[in-house]
Amino acid sequence: NMPKAPSLPPKTLANLFFEPSTRTRCAFECAATQLGWHTLNFPVDTSAALKGESYEDTLLTLAQMPIDALAIRHSENHAAQRAAELIGDKVHIINAGDGTNEHPTQSLTNMTAILEEGLDYKHMTIAIVGDIEHSRVARSDLHALGILAPKAIHLICPKKLLPDDIDPSLPITHFDNLAKGLENVDVILVLRMQKERMRDTLLMSLEDYSQDFCLTPEALAIAKPSAIILHPGPVNHDFEISSSLVHCPQSRILHQVHCGVAVRMAVLYTLSGNTL
Amino acid sequence: NMPKAPSLPPKTLANLFFEPSTRTRCAFECAATQLGWHTLNFPVDTSAALKGESYEDTLLTLAQMPIDALAIRHSENHAAQRAAELIGDKVHIINAGDGTNEHPTQSLTNMTAILEEGLDYKHMTIAIVGDIEHSRVARSDLHALGILAPKAIHLICPKKLLPDDIDPSLPITHFDNLAKGLENVDVILVLRMQKERMRDTLLMSLEDYSQDFCLTPEALAIAKPSAIILHPGPVNHDFEISSSLVHCPQSRILHQVHCGVAVRMAVLYTLSGNTL
Amino acid sequence: NMPKAPSLPPKTLANLFFEPSTRTRCAFECAATQLGWHTLNFPVDTSAALKGESYEDTLLTLAQMPIDALAIRHSENHAAQRAAELIGDKVHIINAGDGTNEHPTQSLTNMTAILEEGLDYKHMTIAIVGDIEHSRVARSDLHALGILAPKAIHLICPKKLLPDDIDPSLPITHFDNLAKGLENVDVILVLRMQKERMRDTLLMSLEDYSQDFCLTPEALAIAKPSAIILHPGPVNHDFEISSSLVHCPQSRILHQVHCGVAVRMAVLYTLSGNTL
Repeated sequence: NMPKAPSLPPKTLANLFFEPSTRTRCAFECAATQLGWHTLNFPVDTSAALKGESYEDTLLTLAQMPIDALAIRHSENHAAQRAAELIGDKVHIINAGDGTNEHPTQSLTNMTAILEEGLDYKHMTIAIVGDIEHSRVARSDLHALGILAPKAIHLICPKKLLPDDIDPSLPITHFDNLAKGLENVDVILVLRMQKERMRDTLLMSLEDYSQDFCLTPEALAIAKPSAIILHPGPVNHDFEISSSLVHCPQSRILHQVHCGVAVRMAVLYTLSGNTL
Repeated sequence: NMPKAPSLPPKTLANLFFEPSTRTRCAFECAATQLGWHTLNFPVDTSAALKGESYEDTLLTLAQMPIDALAIRHSENHAAQRAAELIGDKVHIINAGDGTNEHPTQSLTNMTAILEEGLDYKHMTIAIVGDIEHSRVARSDLHALGILAPKAIHLICPKKLLPDDIDPSLPITHFDNLAKGLENVDVILVLRMQKERMRDTLLMSLEDYSQDFCLTPEALAIAKPSAIILHPGPVNHDFEISSSLVHCPQSRILHQVHCGVAVRMAVLYTLSGNTL
Repeated sequence: NMPKAPSLPPKTLANLFFEPSTRTRCAFECAATQLGWHTLNFPVDTSAALKGESYEDTLLTLAQMPIDALAIRHSENHAAQRAAELIGDKVHIINAGDGTNEHPTQSLTNMTAILEEGLDYKHMTIAIVGDIEHSRVARSDLHALGILAPKAIHLICPKKLLPDDIDPSLPITHFDNLAKGLENVDVILVLRMQKERMRDTLLMSLEDYSQDFCLTPEALAIAKPSAIILHPGPVNHDFEISSSLVHCPQSRILHQVHCGVAVRMAVLYTLSGNTL
């Protein structure tokens, strides 16, 4: 009759982040906590230490631990997919952002915030503004919108920031003029600018970009009066969006953060259901 | 009949520390754990990463997460107060030390350790020794002593380290001589010296300061034989206090650490009661 | 009738790591979680910040917190033992690796992985290959083998990497030739090479060392066909072991990680039983 160990250990989420992130990691940890899960954090510096061994060896090692789900943030495209192929039979893999490829939970956050407006996607025109080519959020948004099927999608950016591999079945129009692109728009998805990357890939200066594509009150006035603004954060004030718009009545930027926890709860909950 | 998520998630304390701290952060986390709370840590390097966005945006973002209390350590005076004004309606804000302004939970720790001696504040003489002008602990101590009303308060420091905004209703006497200031003293609150700051604000050398104001066995002998020593830690040995006194019978320095967890438990417990 | 605080706070394990470690720290945290314990992490950078105060003062401080067990990783030999002498009456001290001295839980992990093969130690020949002199794992392995009493122990390394303080009662033979040392071997414990240390202590080049002592398929073929390979990880591929052997059928390297969590659970569970 030795004392017994607790018979129901909590499920464990491991955050394996090879790139710095505060809000995504925090949203995952908060979601896990709400569900009674434990969170194991491998912050970027620890993960860097892990780099002494190969990414594959790190994954194989973690798969031997009592970890139920692994949220991976990595600078390389398809890093999460490689993990799923390698250890997906042992651990649920969640893509928390891979290179310029995808960021599904952030996109689900956007879609949730839009759904909460109570509008019908079928009649919606959705604009995405920014460096679409290099945005993993935009790429995931386009996947989601392929399913949700809005009336129209406006991609607003300089021509050279438009991806060349867009699904031709989507109702997409490209605009290199912000004002024209915002006409009749219901939802404006503003992307966060990666200043360093922009400097390298864009021939125009950041100031010139901002002058043409920053969402200002004047530009916002062109969209529908009921149009809402989304942004994954953190915001570069007065660069991709005017500071005065960040918390304006049409902004759902803070509410998105709230949705982001709910979305990660849903993801973990679904995974959990599968393994129960 | 899907499986149900746990219905009672734990309350969550977030430690948002923009300055390094081990014992305060740890005391908060231990206190939270004792109460069944979850702790979310934003250590100083993560917080530094957060600096890409404004302090205000960080706070507004965190206020959207399921966080019940936010313990903030910041190098700027009134940082916690700004947080309380901005998001205090959504999250309980706890000041874990702001600039040279206040450090209320550390002061409560001091007062708790003193109360545990079973003495009556009304008959007590309390000495504070060190750089009072720049000490957030001392400033909070003086607030607390304004309520607890000891018989006398001795501020022992070079004249130039005496604050000029002291509440004149307090029974304060300034001493620039350690021996004189310790006569008839019941409690000696030794402050931790911030060597870098001292070097800048003090005309005398650190060695000269130490020669005059370090609490030595000889100086201690001047206080009442029952006098107790407090220090917030970590101790600079033989600079503000002789190494031989740190764990002497009159020292309550380690016991303070124990009180520090109890105090943070009381703070979280009270906040928790308010929100239940 | 105030609301009551939870009456049964979880036990708390604190990980105090003065050297970087991911898998050991993670194994301890996973083990704690499985048992319903809370984990308090002091990663290496925080611990470095702690160095402002003496190791002793840090330990005395932590002993005042509601911490049940303290897993210590330190670059100095006997650091955990010093902790046990200082605060062992208040907190259970677990040696998570001290200098070149010992790493008991890693060694228990090795022994557990071997036991799971279902063989009888009495008839086993166990080889240890690598820098035995500077390996804390090897030193702990030899302690464990002193109790488990295998038939023979082969230490395979250049003469100058052989410790001079080996217990003469152990059935040890030294081999400076890998092929000869592997004859009739049941278990091959490959040590992780510390490249920087090797460079300093070994007169031969790393490449020459590797040429002579790297476990290759050819070398493995000399051991018994049923021989298993262990390695504490992370592996330096093609330096101490051929990449093709890391996940070969005879390798138990990944299974060891699994055993490592079980071993730490057993350690915490035993400590917990003692304090219940």
